[in-house]
Parts: sequence; C-alpha cells; structure tokens
Amino acid sequence: MSTSDWSLPETDVFDRIRTTLEAESEAVLATVIAVEGSAYRRPGAKMLLSPDGPEVGSITAGCLEDEVRALAADVLADGAPRVETWDLTGDDDVWGLGVGCNGVITVLLEPLGESYRPVVDAYRAGETIGVLTVVGGEADAAIGDRTYYRPNDGFEDETFPEAIQDELEAPLGEVIDAGDAETVSIDSSDGNIEVYVEGVRPPPELVVFGSGHDIDPVVKLAKLVDFRVTVVSFRGGQADADRVPRADAVMSASPREVGELRQWDRDTYAVVMSHNFLDDRFALEQLLETPVPYIGLMGPRKRFDEMREEFTEEGRTFTEAELERVYTPIGLSLGGDAPFQIAFSIVAELLAVAHDRTPQHLTQRIGPIHDRIDITPD
Amino acid sequence: MSTSDWSLPETDVFDRIRTTLEAESEAVLATVIAVEGSAYRRPGAKMLLSPDGPEVGSITAGCLEDEVRALAADVLADGAPRVETWDLTGDDDVWGLGVGCNGVITVLLEPLGESYRPVVDAYRAGETIGVLTVVGGEADAAIGDRTYYRPNDGFEDETFPEAIQDELEAPLGEVIDAGDAETVSIDSSDGNIEVYVEGVRPPPELVVFGSGHDIDPVVKLAKLVDFRVTVVSFRGGQADADRVPRADAVMSASPREVGELRQWDRDTYAVVMSHNFLDDRFALEQLLETPVPYIGLMGPRKRFDEMREEFTEEGRTFTEAELERVYTPIGLSLGGDAPFQIAFSIVAELLAVAHDRTPQHLTQRIGPIHDRIDITPD
Repeated sequence: MSTSDWSLPETDVFDRIRTTLEAESEAVLATVIAVEGSAYRRPGAKMLLSPDGPEVGSITAGCLEDEVRALAADVLADGAPRVETWDLTGDDDVWGLGVGCNGVITVLLEPLGESYRPVVDAYRAGETIGVLTVVGGEADAAIGDRTYYRPNDGFEDETFPEAIQDELEAPLGEVIDAGDAETVSIDSSDGNIEVYVEGVRPPPELVVFGSGHDIDPVVKLAKLVDFRVTVVSFRGGQADADRVPRADAVMSASPREVGELRQWDRDTYAVVMSHNFLDDRFALEQLLETPVPYIGLMGPRKRFDEMREEFTEEGRTFTEAELERVYTPIGLSLGGDAPFQIAFSIVAELLAVAHDRTPQHLTQRIGPIHDRIDITPD
Repeated sequence: MSTSDWSLPETDVFDRIRTTLEAESEAVLATVIAVEGSAYRRPGAKMLLSPDGPEVGSITAGCLEDEVRALAADVLADGAPRVETWDLTGDDDVWGLGVGCNGVITVLLEPLGESYRPVVDAYRAGETIGVLTVVGGEADAAIGDRTYYRPNDGFEDETFPEAIQDELEAPLGEVIDAGDAETVSIDSSDGNIEVYVEGVRPPPELVVFGSGHDIDPVVKLAKLVDFRVTVVSFRGGQADADRVPRADAVMSASPREVGELRQWDRDTYAVVMSHNFLDDRFALEQLLETPVPYIGLMGPRKRFDEMREEFTEEGRTFTEAELERVYTPIGLSLGGDAPFQIAFSIVAELLAVAHDRTPQHLTQRIGPIHDRIDITPD
C-alpha cells in the first residue's frame, strides 16, 4: 500500500468506492465504528481493500491494517459482513499507550455492494445522508442490514423494525448534520440492537476569487485537507485550468454577478484575493448577502475599512454579525511570507472555521481532541 | 512561468541560484529590498530570471513580474545592477488598494555572479550569513557592491568603507539572527549610503521520528513551507526513502541514541510519532536534554503524563521551562481527523512556533501582519 493511497482525502476514498462499485469489482469496505480511549482515527474512517487493486484510505496509523487485510480475505470468501474489535489497551510495553495502537477499536468489514450505492451517490451529488447499519444485538436483524436517513425526507423505507427507527430518529439530525459517526445500543420492543450511525457529509466547498499565481498554493493545500475547490477569475481566461490543475472547477465571471454564480450556503467558504480593490469590493458586497460562514479577504485591515466606507456612502449597511464573517487580514497568524506559507495560514483558518475550532495549541485546549456528540438514547 | 516555479519554497530558489551559478548560465536575480505600505511579499523575496530557463520565485502576487522581466533584459545587456522603485499607491481604482499591487516596492536587479556564491554556499552548509549590498547613496561605492557578515567572524573583509561597516555592525546581529531584511540609510564620514542588509538564514530543520504511513503527509506539508526534513525510523528499514520521497534525509536509529544522532540546536524542531510508548519515551527524554525549541509528541496528554511519571520514578526531573517545549497533544486545534488534516495541524503548529507567533486569527492580531525589526541607526 503506498503512502499516497493511505493518506487519500475522504473525497478520493469515496471516488474509489464508487468506481469499484461501477466496475462491479470485488472489494471489502472496512469502517471504524467505535473507539474507546485514544486513536489516530475516529469512527467513520474508511479503508477499501481490493484483492487485486490498491488499498485506499486508513483506519489506524498502521497498527491494524495487517489484521484487517487478513480478515478482509475471509469476508470476501464467505460474503458475510462482520464486526471485529481489537483491544490494544494492554499494558504491554511494545504496543503500550500508543496512539492508533491504543484504545479499543471496533471495525465493520463488509463486502462492498449495492447497499453502499446510495451513500456514494449522495456524496457525489453534494447531499448529506445518514447511514444506519446493524452491527450487533439480539433483535431480528443481521449484521450489515442497512437503511438511510435523509435530512429532508426521513428514513428511506422501513428496512429496520419501526420501533428501532422511531428510537433513532430524534437524535439523528444533529449527528448527521455534524457529519458525526457513532455506534448506539437500543433497547426496543424488538430487543436490543446495536446500530452504527454515520452522517456522511460531502466535503465543504471553497470558492477562491482571483487569477494570480498565488491562487494555486491555496487550491493545492485546500484539496489535501478535502475541500471541494472552485476558482473564479474576474479576468476572463487568466485563471485557466492549467494554472490551478487541482481545482475541481474553474470559471470566469463578472465581479457583479458573484451572487448569482452558484448556490451559496453554510457549507461554502469564500476566499477573495483578486488583488483588485473594485473587484474584491463587489465580490465582498455580494457575499455578505449570502449565508456563507466565511469570507476571507486578502489585504490589510484598512483596505476592508475603505470598502466599508464605500458601502456606507452608497447607503448599504451590514450588521456586525454579517461583518463578523469577514476575515481580514486573511489567515491564521503563523508567520512566513512565502506563497505556500501564506496559503498555509489561509487554509489553516478555513479548517478551524469549518470545524468550529478556536485556533490554539491543542496543549492549551480543554477537553478531548476530537469533538463528540453523544446520541446514546437514555 | 508556471505556478509551481513561482511558488517554490526558498530552499528551492536558492538551489536554482546555485545550479545556475555552477553552470555559469546568464541570469538576473531580483530581490525586494524595501516595501512601504502593504505588499504580498516582504523584503528578501527573490526571483531568478534566466533568458532561456524558467523563472523561479516571486516578488509580488503578480503585479510587477512583467515589468521586472523587461528590466532584467536590460540588466543582462549592460551588465550593471540597478535599483528600481514602483509606486503602486495611486488612487487609481483598477490597481487600487490591492495587496501586492499596492505600496511602494523597491527591487534590486543584478546579473547573477560570483558575489552571490558565498550566500548560496552558506545556505547550503546550513550557516547563517548577513549580506550587505549597496543600493544607493552618494558615498564612494557602486550599486551592487557587496560584503558579508558572519555571526561568529564579523565582516568578511573591508569591501565597504570602514566607517560604514562600523555603523552597521551594532544592529546586524539581531537582523541576521531573525533572518530579516531591510534597507538602511547611513550617514557616515564618507557621505550618505543606502545599504540593503539581509540575514540569510537556512531553513529550520525538522526531525520526525516514526515509520508509519502517517509520517509522509507531515513531511510533504513541512517541505512545502520550507522545513528541511529528516525522518528517523526506530524500526530499521521500515521508513525507507520510498515511503517519504520528499524527505531530505532518512535514517534508522535506536531510540537510545537520539541524543547523539545529530546536532540539536535552536533551529531544529522534533516531532515524535513512532506510536510506540517506549520508543517515544526514550526519544522524548533525550530531546529534553537538548536545546530544541519544540518537541511535538503525538498522543493524548495522559500518555505524556505516564512518561513523566516514569522519569520521576527513575529519578530524572525536568524543569517546567524544559517541559514547556513539549507540545502534546501535538498540533493546533483545527479539527479533522484525516491523515492530511492531522498533518496540517502539526505543521501549522511548527510554523507558529518557528515564527514565534501566537496562533490566532490575523483579524484578532494587534499590529502589522509582518514582524519588523527597525535597524535604522539614529
């Protein structure tokens, strides 16, 4: 397994799952469904194992990959999904208190099949979907049984016993919206059942405005941490796809039509760096009318202040809450002025805002490294 | 000019300067020597322009590159260095208050020649050097005249009038140590002279301990922001160069010989992520005996606490100041658990520590984005 396959962003792992399904190739999907203690990766981490093709994705920092590979062969042979738990908390000094080689890690292994198609279809379409999979219990359901929950439409069908679906429905919204993943144990009239609930959320969208050389480092880094990136040039033709080869989309537009350019929602982040005052001002003004949670504006603070003065002169006012979404000077304070250092500071800020984090040393953070939502019904 | 050449880390720009010198190819070196107002890049930013070969490096976000290219042809033709100032602060709404297309930017253009060899030699050898270049004034010195200042040895020779060297010597240490760059105006008994002073500091060193797949994303990102990276594996052979193709060096060692492995100084940063408790503990213990400013340790806080308990049991104690260099959990709080997201948080922390920054949104930072040291003698 090459390192580049192991460290693929989630988008690319889902792409491989989709192409494997389309090719009707045999493969096993391994998903971390529960972690106790500390681990390198969290529930929801995925690895696709093909008997011939390359493995993609990762479920630990490397401690379990060999064991999972061996089990995957069994799963392919007998065709049945299974759940396996590894307890790595022993006081053994070789494994010790390692991260990734620590904690109790539970993994679902399943032959990749049609039950996963709605997931990759939703992912590709940019829609959030809740995936519910039976992973244990005494109720009348087999490991691997699966249903889906769509935020607007509810459960796909009544694949699961109705009593269980009723129990699960209430807390699902929050989990799915957060893109969280957790295994819950439910005591229903049908008996106990363990269900792995995963909110599969497509990656956040990043729209970068500009056409200079300084755009590409931002695109490259944002792709590595799994933003879906669109580059918009205000100077027709300059920001051609060759200049930003990793962008998912490149388009040319007038600064006056930014508002209508696409759907602007809470999962879309904007970085304005055309280096042209008027163009940036038009873009900013229109972005402020949208619900985007982040508008990064390159340049010194006084440049933004001048824009605000012009808004005021033209009789346009924005509330403080609206203006709080404007991050200028753009980026986290990390130092360095080389193109990739500047881009790094921008993308670090995007990550922090997208994950609702206060940027600080984890050493100084109170609480666990990973956020968790507790959805265990009481 | 391709984007990848434009955004090359400084290390690679210096490499190209060196190979161009070695090949005795014609080229012009453009260096930003002063900026008033806001600009994308700071003094010290470099671009190498060859009549045939590719251009590398960047001096603005793209606003001046065309003008510099035209001037470079003149410089090559007449062989004389020149200094050019562009005032982009006009109230013109097309350029406007852009970043990189703003401020007053002064650039030194010089035919690349032997006077730059001591700089690339020092850079390659990992030594800091001060470069002093005449860029104006009335004194008896021509634009492009150059001398060097080495922190331990002082001025190379008396290329500059002694009175001027005397004036410059006092503040040089701080500028050079900070890797800063500034143009200073000196009134000496020889008359006024403008000298561009640049502290050329080799990139910081990063040593990553471990041999898992999770090392490579850290190496890749650290290289993009210009760390010189060595990977040390405690499991002989596993961390082969193929797994971390971008590392500058890969070596195998015993966890007990970390202290003697290399020179550990204030410019060397350590990331400990072998995922093995004992190995990490040995590494940590020895790193604590060195002057390295940063020891990142992957894993939860309690893992470090257990290590400390073992140190105490063995009668080893460390002061709070020594322990403050241990960053665990490693990384900035940016969220995300995919391999590149974890690596991003680690490298963001490295950047902040290396640049002595408090990680926070630049929006919240008081003062200018870029640090400056004022060395103008009074």
